[in-house]
Parts: sequence; C-alpha cells; structure tokens
Amino acid sequence: MISDKDQFYMQQAIELAKLGRFTTPPNPNVGCVIVKDDHIIGEGYHQKAGEPHAEVYALIMAGNKAQGATAYVTLEPCSHFGRTPPCADALIKAGITRVVVAMQDPNPSVAGNGIKRLRDAGIEVIVGVLYEQAEAINKGFLKCMRTGIPYVQLKLASSLDGKIAMASGESKWITSSTARQDVQQYRAQASCILSTRATVQADNASLTVRYNELPNEIRKIYPPENIRQPVRVIIDSQNRLTGDENIFSQLGETWIVRKQNIPIIKPNTKLIIESSDQNYIDLVELLKELGKNQINSVWVEAGAHLAGALIEQDLVDELIIYYAPKLLGHNAKDLCVLPNLKKLSLAPQFQFESVKAIGDDLKIILKRK
Amino acid sequence: MISDKDQFYMQQAIELAKLGRFTTPPNPNVGCVIVKDDHIIGEGYHQKAGEPHAEVYALIMAGNKAQGATAYVTLEPCSHFGRTPPCADALIKAGITRVVVAMQDPNPSVAGNGIKRLRDAGIEVIVGVLYEQAEAINKGFLKCMRTGIPYVQLKLASSLDGKIAMASGESKWITSSTARQDVQQYRAQASCILSTRATVQADNASLTVRYNELPNEIRKIYPPENIRQPVRVIIDSQNRLTGDENIFSQLGETWIVRKQNIPIIKPNTKLIIESSDQNYIDLVELLKELGKNQINSVWVEAGAHLAGALIEQDLVDELIIYYAPKLLGHNAKDLCVLPNLKKLSLAPQFQFESVKAIGDDLKIILKRK
Repeated sequence: MISDKDQFYMQQAIELAKLGRFTTPPNPNVGCVIVKDDHIIGEGYHQKAGEPHAEVYALIMAGNKAQGATAYVTLEPCSHFGRTPPCADALIKAGITRVVVAMQDPNPSVAGNGIKRLRDAGIEVIVGVLYEQAEAINKGFLKCMRTGIPYVQLKLASSLDGKIAMASGESKWITSSTARQDVQQYRAQASCILSTRATVQADNASLTVRYNELPNEIRKIYPPENIRQPVRVIIDSQNRLTGDENIFSQLGETWIVRKQNIPIIKPNTKLIIESSDQNYIDLVELLKELGKNQINSVWVEAGAHLAGALIEQDLVDELIIYYAPKLLGHNAKDLCVLPNLKKLSLAPQFQFESVKAIGDDLKIILKRK
Repeated sequence: MISDKDQFYMQQAIELAKLGRFTTPPNPNVGCVIVKDDHIIGEGYHQKAGEPHAEVYALIMAGNKAQGATAYVTLEPCSHFGRTPPCADALIKAGITRVVVAMQDPNPSVAGNGIKRLRDAGIEVIVGVLYEQAEAINKGFLKCMRTGIPYVQLKLASSLDGKIAMASGESKWITSSTARQDVQQYRAQASCILSTRATVQADNASLTVRYNELPNEIRKIYPPENIRQPVRVIIDSQNRLTGDENIFSQLGETWIVRKQNIPIIKPNTKLIIESSDQNYIDLVELLKELGKNQINSVWVEAGAHLAGALIEQDLVDELIIYYAPKLLGHNAKDLCVLPNLKKLSLAPQFQFESVKAIGDDLKIILKRK
C-alpha cells in the first residue's frame, strides 16, 4: 500500500537525484533515501558515471541500521554488473525489507529484473510512487533508452514578433543577460549542444558552459570542477569549417558532422559521417548516431534553418523560447524557416508547459503536442 | 490614519465599481460602500452615464443610518452639477462624518473641489487608499482626462513566431475559440474599436460584441441589454469603403475616418475628417479627435500596418498578445510593420505585465516601458 509517507520520502529521493544533473550524463539521475522508524538513516545520489550508485551511498550511511528498513529509490535498482556491482544485491545483503521505486528502468539489462530479484528475496517492492516526477528528471536517458533517439530541446531567443535579428544581422542582444545566464544552466545539463557551421562562424561562438555566467544559485552548490563541458556537435555539410574557429580551442569535445570523410585535425575533435543518400544531413540519422554515442539529450542553439528543419521533421521534444518585450518589425529575421508549410491546419503544434519571468524577459516552455 | 479596515472596505468599493465596466463609458467606474460600527450599511456603483452616481445608491440603501457613518468611494465625490447633483453635498446632507477616497478626480470640474467641500463641512477626508487599483479600473477615463488622448490597447493574435496569417492570407483560426471569447469582453469594455478599411473588407468583419460569445462568467452577471456596442472607428484614407460592408448594418455606431468630406450615407454612420497636411491619417490627431468625442479607450484590432504605425509613434499604452502554441514559419505574414526601425537599440520596448493561459493559448499583457 502506498502512503503519504511513501510520497514524502520519495520526494526527498527525487530532490537528491536532481543534485547529480550536471554530472551524471550519460547515466540517469538517481536518488535514494533509507528510512527506519520514521527517520531518514541513509541518503545518496548518483554523481557520475563509473562512481557508486545512489543506493550504495545511502547504504553506507545507514550501516547496520539498514536491517529491516525501507529504501526509496527514484529508479529501479540495477540487477547487472556494469561498472559497479548490482544494487539489488546490495539492498538484499543489507537486510532492507521494503523497497519503494518510482519507476522501472527501461535499460534492457535491468527492465524489471532488479525488482524481480528483490521480490524473489522476499522483499516487499512497490513501484510507481511519484512516477511523473521521476520521468521528468531523466527525460534524456529515458527517451534514448526507449527509442534510441535523444531528447531534443530547441532553444530560441526572440522578440515578441518572432524575430531573432535585425535585417543587418545585428542580434546582440535581444534578450537580457539574465536570460543568457539561464541558458548556461541548460547547456550544463545537456549531453551535447547541437549547432551549425553558420552559427559557429557568424558569432565565432565557443558554445561552452561559462561557469561565471551560471546563475548564482547553481554556483553556490556546484564548484567549477563539477560542471562538465557538453560535447559540441556542429553540422557542417559543406565542409566549410577550417579548424581555426574558436570552438576548436575550448575545453571539451567537438564533433563535426559531414557527409564525407574529411576530418579536422584538432585535439578533442571527432568526425561524424552521416552517409545517408540525401545531399543534406539526415537529422534522424544524426540523432540516432548521437544516441549510439551516449548522447541522451541534445540542446539546440542554432539559426532559423536548423530550427525549422527539426520542427518540420517533428524532432523537437521541448521548445524553450525566451521572449524579450520588444518588437523588431517585418524587416527583421525570422525565428524559423518552414519551407513546406502551406496550410494553417498543418502548422506544427505544441502545448504550453510553463511560463516564467527571467529578468525582463519571459521564458516559455512548450512540449510537442 | 489609514487602517487595514479602510483597505478592506475600499476593496469592496473597487469590486463594486468594476460591475459597471461594460456600461459606464464615457463615465468612470465608481463604487461606494458606507460603513457604520463595522457593518456595511450601504453599497452602490455607477451604472451608466446620466444615471445616479455610486454614492447616491449607497446613501439610499443606508437611509437614516448614514448619520455618523464612513463612506468609501473609489473616486473623489463630484462637486458640480452635471447630469446629477453633486455627490459631495449628498454625503454632507446625509450626515456622513468620514470619507475615504481612493483618488482625486482629474476632471477639471472636480479636481479636489469635492474633497475641499467635504472638509469645509467638517468631514474627515482621507485620500489615496488603494490608489493603484483605483487607477487600474479607469485607465481610459483617467488618461483621457489628463492628456486628451484615449487609452490605447492593441490586440494581436499571433503564432509563437510572430505570424498572423499564412502567406495565402489564411488566418482562421490561429488562436482558439476561448481566446476569441476573451477578446469579446475587451471589446465590450472599450469606448471604441479601431480598425482599418483593409481589415473590414478582408474579413467583411462586423466588429461588434457578440453576446453569445462572451465568457460564461460575464453572461451570468450581465443580461444582453447591459452590453453596449462600442463605436466602430474605421480608418479609410483612400475612401474605399462603399457602405455595403457588413459593418454598416450592425447595431451601434460606425465612424469613418477620411481625409476629405466624403460621407457614407448610412444609419448611425458618421464621418470624421482628419484634415492634417499629410497624405496619410495623422494618428495623433485622430486620437485627440476621438478624445474630444468622449472616446476614453480605444481597442485596436487591425493588421500589421496600423499596429506598426501605432507602435512606431509610441501610441500604444497596452499590448495584448494571444499566442497560439504553433509555428507558421518564415513565409507567413508578420505581426507588425516597422519600416523605420534599423537599429536593435531603437526597438520599441514594453514590459511584461501579466501572463494567463486562455484555453490552449497564452494571453500576455505588456505595458509601454
């Protein structure tokens, strides 16, 4: 039976899980709380691939008291030997008698086996407490496990009238510095930043996470060494990047996407050959390839063409638009290019998910409808 | 001294004032509450020009008990003989000993005289309780009294990327029926709806308030006879309206704005000649003329050209944008035409005032910055 207490402790486990969000990729965020006689006796969260899972930290903290206790875990405990031994076994060994799990792990090497293993050992297992929240903290991991395609977030910064630059190209800055700080934290959570040769060359952009520009509340908790640089994935179908662009001298990896085997010889730089028959880069093939390379979540910062192509092919899971409270008029540059759209009834549809004031701007998040 | 009680009762008076919002134009919304020994003994609000003021209704309800009571009024009681005798005198005569007023009346025939009259009669008068709310319920009346120019609300219905129609002109419908219902209630509160010949002819629009399409919560309170038809003001600088358009056979008045004395002979139809030197209609002159004609508030429903011209000339007090959660792409038609804007730093600036979900859409209200 699920009680209010179960929800309460699972909420604690979810808050713990979130603490790992900048470091766990490609692994999922997982939190664990161990409770005995209405007291939390153990807490843990997964911090980084290769390091112990949430359950292990919580069990170490609980020690002998774990005997007869309840464990709350945001994701089904693993049942396989990966880089660490199976958590299900650790829970059994510690004498845990009840396990509450928010959701089953879609990873085919777990997929119910962890739960089965616990039940076979006589442990009471409850599944589904705060399921939706548990889904929300691992959108990338879960989608990629289920479909092989990463979770795609498209970020746009726009005027009220859907413009991203003046006719002259002038675009610094439409949104406020607060909005641009907000963007930094999305970058920091993503597996990769997807952009194009045009954007990289136009701004000579670095596409890195700049620690100093992260919001204060993030910097308070995370020291610089806890912030990863997501992979920069740059579409360059015409082989026009030279290797001299800023992007190649930044920390972290840069992956160049081309149709042919023409690599750029630079440190931490890799070529992805997208060899489908079309002349242009096949975005579905590219996303599948990224999924195979443990890229669970893609943060897109690009111009109107890539934005439009992703939308037209229905590849965007989440649209994040920062609206600045200004108007740029009909001569300014459009938010997205949708060359094939002729009828209003066929317009790509989303649904509003949340709205938040960010400095002088408004951040609107939409999901695919 | 202002007490919490004063604020509480003034809040009641403001709620009463709002009840008149569909019928009072060109008069202001005013509410009045009379309180004695912590009991409300009288309530009233102004319903319609020519009918008694709020204070009169409240005094009638209070009767003899008004002796020694406190009156809360959202706007300074009048001191002049208009269509009704001065309310200040009525309050004095009834034996009210304390009057709490939210704000002074900017009407030059009142402008502090009502307050002075009360004080001269030995009544304690307190001014400024819930001032901001009192301003907000009479934005049109107050601005027009102070400046001679009506309060201008520009309504836009847009896709996420700032488009108002497909390239083909198809625009029915970008926003949901819920959003269109919401528009009806703004129309019903305005002194006039401002539009253009192009919009009228493109849709053969009626530009009326359709009672059946008002939100339910409005229809619950107001019977059809309490809903006015705002004046329809149509800019027709090229004299292209024929008189056969739908708009001329609707209830309520239609005013046609032309440069020359070429009237349209139809019932309830009037010509406004805007005779400034330019070839086009001078919008400032037009707004002043409307102000002189007791149009306190202007609700604009028009295309990208009039919207852009009003914005470029800084004539929009409030921007009300309904965003539908869809994208129409670069070929679709733009929200506003701003031919003179060349630099990002000169882009018209607003500030977000409120955001509300309306059906599947989002209503965003912005004020001039």
